Amino acid sequence: MAGNTFGELFRVTTFGESHGAGLGCVIDGCPAGLPLTLEDIAAELRRRRPGGGGPSTSRTETDEPEILSGVFEGKTLGSPIAILVRNTNQRSGDYDNLKDVYRPGHADWTWEAKYGFRDHRGGGRSSARETLGRVAAGAVAKIFLTTLNIEIRAWTSAAAGIAVPGPGGKGFDWNEIEQNPLRIPHREIAQQALEKLEGIRAEGDSAGCAVSCLVKNLPPGLGEPVFDKLDARLAAAMLSLGAAKGIEFGAGFAAASGLGSELNDSPVSAPGLFPELPPASIPLPPNVPPVRWAHNNAGGVLGGISNGMPLEFTVAFKPVPSIGKKQQTVNRQGDARDLVIQGRHDACIAPRAAPVVEAMAALVIADLVLLQRGARL
Amino acid sequence: MAGNTFGELFRVTTFGESHGAGLGCVIDGCPAGLPLTLEDIAAELRRRRPGGGGPSTSRTETDEPEILSGVFEGKTLGSPIAILVRNTNQRSGDYDNLKDVYRPGHADWTWEAKYGFRDHRGGGRSSARETLGRVAAGAVAKIFLTTLNIEIRAWTSAAAGIAVPGPGGKGFDWNEIEQNPLRIPHREIAQQALEKLEGIRAEGDSAGCAVSCLVKNLPPGLGEPVFDKLDARLAAAMLSLGAAKGIEFGAGFAAASGLGSELNDSPVSAPGLFPELPPASIPLPPNVPPVRWAHNNAGGVLGGISNGMPLEFTVAFKPVPSIGKKQQTVNRQGDARDLVIQGRHDACIAPRAAPVVEAMAALVIADLVLLQRGARL
Amino acid sequence: MAGNTFGELFRVTTFGESHGAGLGCVIDGCPAGLPLTLEDIAAELRRRRPGGGGPSTSRTETDEPEILSGVFEGKTLGSPIAILVRNTNQRSGDYDNLKDVYRPGHADWTWEAKYGFRDHRGGGRSSARETLGRVAAGAVAKIFLTTLNIEIRAWTSAAAGIAVPGPGGKGFDWNEIEQNPLRIPHREIAQQALEKLEGIRAEGDSAGCAVSCLVKNLPPGLGEPVFDKLDARLAAAMLSLGAAKGIEFGAGFAAASGLGSELNDSPVSAPGLFPELPPASIPLPPNVPPVRWAHNNAGGVLGGISNGMPLEFTVAFKPVPSIGKKQQTVNRQGDARDLVIQGRHDACIAPRAAPVVEAMAALVIADLVLLQRGARL
Amino acid sequence: MAGNTFGELFRVTTFGESHGAGLGCVIDGCPAGLPLTLEDIAAELRRRRPGGGGPSTSRTETDEPEILSGVFEGKTLGSPIAILVRNTNQRSGDYDNLKDVYRPGHADWTWEAKYGFRDHRGGGRSSARETLGRVAAGAVAKIFLTTLNIEIRAWTSAAAGIAVPGPGGKGFDWNEIEQNPLRIPHREIAQQALEKLEGIRAEGDSAGCAVSCLVKNLPPGLGEPVFDKLDARLAAAMLSLGAAKGIEFGAGFAAASGLGSELNDSPVSAPGLFPELPPASIPLPPNVPPVRWAHNNAGGVLGGISNGMPLEFTVAFKPVPSIGKKQQTVNRQGDARDLVIQGRHDACIAPRAAPVVEAMAALVIADLVLLQRGARL
Repeated sequence: MAGNTFGELFRVTTFGESHGAGLGCVIDGCPAGLPLTLEDIAAELRRRRPGGGGPSTSRTETDEPEILSGVFEGKTLGSPIAILVRNTNQRSGDYDNLKDVYRPGHADWTWEAKYGFRDHRGGGRSSARETLGRVAAGAVAKIFLTTLNIEIRAWTSAAAGIAVPGPGGKGFDWNEIEQNPLRIPHREIAQQALEKLEGIRAEGDSAGCAVSCLVKNLPPGLGEPVFDKLDARLAAAMLSLGAAKGIEFGAGFAAASGLGSELNDSPVSAPGLFPELPPASIPLPPNVPPVRWAHNNAGGVLGGISNGMPLEFTVAFKPVPSIGKKQQTVNRQGDARDLVIQGRHDACIAPRAAPVVEAMAALVIADLVLLQRGARL
Repeated sequence: MAGNTFGELFRVTTFGESHGAGLGCVIDGCPAGLPLTLEDIAAELRRRRPGGGGPSTSRTETDEPEILSGVFEGKTLGSPIAILVRNTNQRSGDYDNLKDVYRPGHADWTWEAKYGFRDHRGGGRSSARETLGRVAAGAVAKIFLTTLNIEIRAWTSAAAGIAVPGPGGKGFDWNEIEQNPLRIPHREIAQQALEKLEGIRAEGDSAGCAVSCLVKNLPPGLGEPVFDKLDARLAAAMLSLGAAKGIEFGAGFAAASGLGSELNDSPVSAPGLFPELPPASIPLPPNVPPVRWAHNNAGGVLGGISNGMPLEFTVAFKPVPSIGKKQQTVNRQGDARDLVIQGRHDACIAPRAAPVVEAMAALVIADLVLLQRGARL
Repeated sequence: MAGNTFGELFRVTTFGESHGAGLGCVIDGCPAGLPLTLEDIAAELRRRRPGGGGPSTSRTETDEPEILSGVFEGKTLGSPIAILVRNTNQRSGDYDNLKDVYRPGHADWTWEAKYGFRDHRGGGRSSARETLGRVAAGAVAKIFLTTLNIEIRAWTSAAAGIAVPGPGGKGFDWNEIEQNPLRIPHREIAQQALEKLEGIRAEGDSAGCAVSCLVKNLPPGLGEPVFDKLDARLAAAMLSLGAAKGIEFGAGFAAASGLGSELNDSPVSAPGLFPELPPASIPLPPNVPPVRWAHNNAGGVLGGISNGMPLEFTVAFKPVPSIGKKQQTVNRQGDARDLVIQGRHDACIAPRAAPVVEAMAALVIADLVLLQRGARL
Repeated sequence: MAGNTFGELFRVTTFGESHGAGLGCVIDGCPAGLPLTLEDIAAELRRRRPGGGGPSTSRTETDEPEILSGVFEGKTLGSPIAILVRNTNQRSGDYDNLKDVYRPGHADWTWEAKYGFRDHRGGGRSSARETLGRVAAGAVAKIFLTTLNIEIRAWTSAAAGIAVPGPGGKGFDWNEIEQNPLRIPHREIAQQALEKLEGIRAEGDSAGCAVSCLVKNLPPGLGEPVFDKLDARLAAAMLSLGAAKGIEFGAGFAAASGLGSELNDSPVSAPGLFPELPPASIPLPPNVPPVRWAHNNAGGVLGGISNGMPLEFTVAFKPVPSIGKKQQTVNRQGDARDLVIQGRHDACIAPRAAPVVEAMAALVIADLVLLQRGARL
């Protein structure tokens, strides 16, 4: 309960500081018999790693994972899967000037207020590198969900004040997501946003972004009622990301000003309405009719339980707080100080955010899939 | 982990269906020695109860709580505090026509998809009455937080498409909140929204709303890093409410299109900037300087840990799905059916939502206060 | 975490003090669709209730349970099952002389050392009446296990220094267990022990006992490796009973002085060796051969996982600490005092212990059955 | 929940198989600011490591730990402490003949019954090497407990059928424990037991043992009532050790045949009775008088809560199941097979057991110390 474990049955504990020996995770509860390779994990870590030309930090960790336990002859054993990524490109000296000063927008002071002590090198545990353990664990969760045909896709839906049309919108292209450094599913907008971000970075500033996520083939029935609703779990997962400031599902904040007659999703029996939806991988109880839904304002979740429609949500991320512009702050003695942050920093987390959002969604869903096994006789 | 328990150290389990024998909660982990009366709980339940003239259901439960255990001679014992509210005004017959049909926007079908079975009377466990247990538990948490001088206030910040200015905005009046049935902190806007809601209700429709919450005197250092961040816990708490579709903290979704130089909250040493802030009820570690912050775009939380500024967040709620207008749906055999929902229903959850949001915030904060006791030697 | 919740997936929270309004439990995670009646619970509570002629307290609560939630039309809903037993025969005045004094062998002083405060009436939460909630929850667990053909039987295997032969031993009679107030499976020994206990009671003293338990038809594979082994969970369950002082499995303490060549249980392929064993209710993985075992020194558990043999363990209980003999103690001021405890007390917990042991075993096994559903793809 | 995590606030997750890349643990919830060195951990691992001349396996791992995270400038950060011990002396080939056969007394078959799959090399996760992670974590817990003056000492109290007098008994010598390979606190008996074990080993057999543990300076008030009693937690901890078959506290099984008048521990006010007891490190509530106790039949725990007396318990361990003698078993096809186990195996776990028991006791107590911080206002 000390905050570094996530999930109940598919259960992940992460560890590691930005400039310590390494970061990683222990996954407890992954079902036995799942085929798993090192490359499954390495591939997701590469997606999370900042690229060359984009608006990300130029720190180039190789981020090579090692599986320490839990896999034997290419399959999961049922025992804990420990994964380690060593820190190899540490330039702790970059942070010496930050030892006695609290960076605006960062967790430096709050961490000390909590623990009386912090690792000032690169933010320590509150660094964005902390997400390495999440992505490694999420990679395993994804492999598990693949056995149920569940597919999770996240993309940058807004960056530096430039919005991107959603799925079905003009120019939206699933295939484009992994083709540009910002993971924007629209080539022209991606180019436009990249240029704007370059300008922002050149001024020593940073920009916020939004990431949307869609989960296809989610079987109905996932999510525990009351406190552990599907959307409640996802909200916790996403707001646990350092820079997240908000989340909305389906119609989201717009629902607050809508009418019930417009927003209620209705079950419909008409077969063919959503022909792209395959049979659910977890069968319905025998006496419950399969249904489709006329709309998806709910974003795939009713009463906290998946309804068989695509799960849809969007997360808002604030700008990266490490900026080159001069800022006011105070030092450890409580005296006012000017601060110019040096070192390698992202101008926008968009490039890395989508894989991390996917990883967290995979962890939530894997856990709920296992919990669902106990729902009925 | 089956979803009806919330919190780790201040730990609440709720139970009960809308039309069963009763609803309630068991609170485990409330510190011993806390003065607690039945009226503390009854008062909060009355705030949650739909009033007479407003846009809420005309079902008039008295909702009298009984403390079954955990309190002796007016003080908490350290043992579980069980609270029961009996259902007394059940008109189950109102729901007979809903037995074999799935209401749009409700959890009827998803509940069956999960469990193969449901209590169709008033939504059963997925009824808004489920929040009774939360409010009773939240009342106890509030009493506990009062010992730390922590104050939680929620209000309706938008209803039926009408937005309300925030604290400090023109006409915002803390004292007005409990003076009108919508809990809108602005008399004229409240009147305007009430009239608009009456029109919506007259047409057999319903409307969404937003509820904002501000927590004062929150001591710095609350929130567990990584997965159990203060904002992550609050997000889970709020999205666990049946009709919630989104949450944002501080600048929220606007942060996604802002710049770091605008949004970074800076620590400042100037005493007097926030003279209204009292000394923190949980002392800072001896070597950490007290700070104030130049702005509060973060909404009181940095890196998932409270920074001593007021905690601020807003929750979006969809319209009540039970509407009088004719809707399309399917029945248990999967055949299309017309549906007109009868019975007593809210046109907007605004009147009840603020007390429930306060209760959930109190539960989150009480838990994190106790967890913080283990943070340092 | 605050100690009043047991189990992970089949999860029970109990509440209530001896002389408060009532005691009970909330069961979260019982699978939906299980047939459950009030009588299922009442019957187990009657077994736990002290009888008339035996060595138990003459306090005669009727202990009528009420199901507050979670059951609809005779079946479990998947939502929390809350059960309440009101205290009706409270004679709090019996305890007035104990308000300012600490009873030897009881938790009076330790409870105050922990909480600074206690309900002195009948031990409050540390009363034997606390087991009411356990037995009610165990009754539900038993019904669930019945669907898997799992059968749990406990009996008094020693009382007042008189030992009883085990299953297969001379005179052991399963049918006798419920026929005498001590639940001793041997008519003559039961009579002998009853007489000895009457003498002990007449002298104002009390006696210890041992309870053995055997679980038949336990499917192989139950128990989580490392910390949540089947035997570790059972040990926690049994030592959580107020008067328990020890537990042993299979050969138990005798194994500490034995040899591997004598004690190793060997798998054997000879069909027919244990013809009474039915097919396991949870099927073995397809590639794993069914086996029998040549002996059962392990008591049915190897490496913390059930092996298909009968689960066997014994719990040692100390004498009831409430005795009529004069004892030395101290009062709230720390001064020495003589104490003679009055009121209604058991001379030996044997009559009630077996149903409580069965209940706790049922809770452990129900939980592990559900956890096992997540073990494999 | 998947079995590899222990504790609530001082929370340990272990990982690793006997012949995989390595074993270790992640400790989440250790308070920040605790001085911790690599040598603190290495020293405990050396105590666990089988020595040269004794009755242990001749496999000589160096078992060098590495701290991967959570410690900065010699102090704990409050973030997870990950510790890794690489496997360096793996002779997996020793186990090739065990791939298709189930070893008697081992978890080979039960592991397959659970997961459908196992790592046959050295028992995989069910190897005694699994305790490495426990001992590493226990070393950190011990350092934490040292700040409270709490001292944990375990020793071999019986081995190969030879019993050892307890503390205060003739010849018992605390200083002898670490002086002989069996950790028997009595030089002559240790020599005698070693010789007997050599004979047993020479015959290809193995022997059981018992380990006793005493915890001094345990402050009163530790242990959560009802399910998480101090003794319940310790019972779970100890029975989670692979070869444990029983545990008893204080008078233990003897209490089952004793009388209340003999066994009740009475509080006494006479100062000076236990002059060796220092003031408790966690202060009593102001209104509760400090007491001493006339005896310690309870073993330091009343109602599941520590009473300030030394905590005393004994664990029974079965003989090591890997023996050289020919045994009967079955193979993966279910056919009968003779088996002679080769390789390096302990003849008795006595040499390693005491440090592991201490480690588990330290984990339990550290957790309960932190939980106690939430007990009172």
